[in-house]
Amino acid sequence: MATFSRVKVIGAGLIGTSIALGLKRAGYELSIEDEDPQSEAIAQSLLGQGDEGLIPELIVIATPISAIPKLIREYGTLYPQATLMDIGGLKSEVLEEIKDFPSISTRFCATHPMAGREISGALAARGDLFEGRIWIWTPAQNSSPLAIERALEVISALGGTKVELTAHEHDHTIAGISHLPQIVSSLLSATLIDVSDRDIGLAGQGLKDVSRLAASNSSLWANLLHANRKAVGEFLEIFSHNIDDLSTSLQNDDLRKTQEILELGRENHARIPGKHGGKKRDYWYLPIIIEDKPGQLAKIFDACALVDANVEDLSIEHTPGQESGLVTLALSKVDSEKVFKQLASDGWKVHQPRESIG
Amino acid sequence: MATFSRVKVIGAGLIGTSIALGLKRAGYELSIEDEDPQSEAIAQSLLGQGDEGLIPELIVIATPISAIPKLIREYGTLYPQATLMDIGGLKSEVLEEIKDFPSISTRFCATHPMAGREISGALAARGDLFEGRIWIWTPAQNSSPLAIERALEVISALGGTKVELTAHEHDHTIAGISHLPQIVSSLLSATLIDVSDRDIGLAGQGLKDVSRLAASNSSLWANLLHANRKAVGEFLEIFSHNIDDLSTSLQNDDLRKTQEILELGRENHARIPGKHGGKKRDYWYLPIIIEDKPGQLAKIFDACALVDANVEDLSIEHTPGQESGLVTLALSKVDSEKVFKQLASDGWKVHQPRESIG
Repeated sequence: MATFSRVKVIGAGLIGTSIALGLKRAGYELSIEDEDPQSEAIAQSLLGQGDEGLIPELIVIATPISAIPKLIREYGTLYPQATLMDIGGLKSEVLEEIKDFPSISTRFCATHPMAGREISGALAARGDLFEGRIWIWTPAQNSSPLAIERALEVISALGGTKVELTAHEHDHTIAGISHLPQIVSSLLSATLIDVSDRDIGLAGQGLKDVSRLAASNSSLWANLLHANRKAVGEFLEIFSHNIDDLSTSLQNDDLRKTQEILELGRENHARIPGKHGGKKRDYWYLPIIIEDKPGQLAKIFDACALVDANVEDLSIEHTPGQESGLVTLALSKVDSEKVFKQLASDGWKVHQPRESIG
Repeated sequence: MATFSRVKVIGAGLIGTSIALGLKRAGYELSIEDEDPQSEAIAQSLLGQGDEGLIPELIVIATPISAIPKLIREYGTLYPQATLMDIGGLKSEVLEEIKDFPSISTRFCATHPMAGREISGALAARGDLFEGRIWIWTPAQNSSPLAIERALEVISALGGTKVELTAHEHDHTIAGISHLPQIVSSLLSATLIDVSDRDIGLAGQGLKDVSRLAASNSSLWANLLHANRKAVGEFLEIFSHNIDDLSTSLQNDDLRKTQEILELGRENHARIPGKHGGKKRDYWYLPIIIEDKPGQLAKIFDACALVDANVEDLSIEHTPGQESGLVTLALSKVDSEKVFKQLASDGWKVHQPRESIG
């Protein structure tokens, strides 16, 4: 199926390394480089042996956005036969910056995979990061059919769902569904400066979810927000207006108005697609109360291995000042039942498998 | 261990039914009632046969907060020998409203379990909902030792972690760590009214997490926010101020200031406990590339046990259908070095321990 085979990825962060891992698995020849030798080394050890001397047919620029236009021109010049794509979080600026270099821009197709996490770096990379995820593509005005075809082939090979948007559509939408949530999460966390360390320890899952994005790289995000500041400013204005309305209804003890505002949030939340952007994995969850001491997890995993069950994921909740913790294993339904039986018969405090982590 | 045995729960929602299920499992005699016959029927079917004529020693008021003071007085009068506790999300108002009824308030201890989900109702109830969760308790000025003892016995029986706060401490803290996140999530979602259905479909996990709480019951939350509107107003003011600062720095293209604000969010986010209920601990992270097959984790944990290392947390990133996965262990610095040496000498593809998971 592949119409080309040699790919060079520039940038060994989460996205670049995940693309490299996924394409390697799909049978492409890969090389990856990064200006940071340590990141490059990690990515290469994940990839196995790469081909240093590879002449790429496709170059994937997977760096922070500020570096992208320059790298497109550099690598486009270095490999005049190759086509290029990027994975940057904004599209107007990069297309604007290369439009005066037609011999380059004709070989380029802009793209943006809607995947990635608040953590970053090659170590977090996964070849299946893009499976079932939206992957936006935005051709340049003069993108050649070959440049577009190769970019779309990459998206398909990695299991992404292709959506074509103009640069303006992309950047406006991203301001609402990605940049605004980042801002809100960061500013909520910043507001917690007024809560003591002891009291912040009482936080439940709600705060953890809403504030999760605040862990993001602040330099990378400051650059993204500024590159898209016009569209971001528009959403911030609406959001600010909503905050003012709620402050007023609280001050006036106008319960009905407060409920109306919350209800507007509920209705619009219902328009967001479900938890699993892509393929849903049907994990079952098995909660086990353990003593918080060395060797407990080893014994649990021995039991899993004994019944040939593959643990898909795991979380550990410790109870401060107490000797017990809660371990939740994520398994296939069949495996969760096997492990449940095994652990129960071994005398563990294990609960019935359940479909939701609760 | 139990110093009493007969419990009546008023309110068959998520919390009330979960308490009833958990206490029944722990050996108490239970009855449950709800003004809504359907909710009561569901809770009773989950509980099995309840004792309608039971004379309770403890009454748990598990209704929305607006009904709590009245129900405390009613049931306190109806069962003059019983002690009472509530599970309401605010503490100042309820204690204020019963303080003129000393024959009731002496038998009452206010509490608030920090568990519950954006979904609600008896059907979602689980007897283990509170295991390992914080459960705040706030005695009245004249709470009797017996009223306190029984409330604490319930918390212990359900596996909760007891934290004593004054009513003011509780309500201020909750405004910051629970009410503000709810507002922010709802208002973010309300702002999405400006994004089309097609474009909202492009949303990734970030928006889903930050907006998750917006699915909450708007009537219940409007009442909570209004009952705590003074403390909530204080946090909203700080949050608003942060929004204004960021809008200004974007308008002025002041990249450094934007980054400073985001960084303040990142630093405060780091103070929120992670998977662990308690204080953030200084973990070191040990990444290991494994074959994705049963038994690998057992071998890793055997190695940890061999060097007497306690695994504090663990994440698994893997690729179904691919042969490798990435396991990251969280350990103390000392343990991370011991485990690193052990795994390296056993031939595992293990990377040097590092201070951040990224």
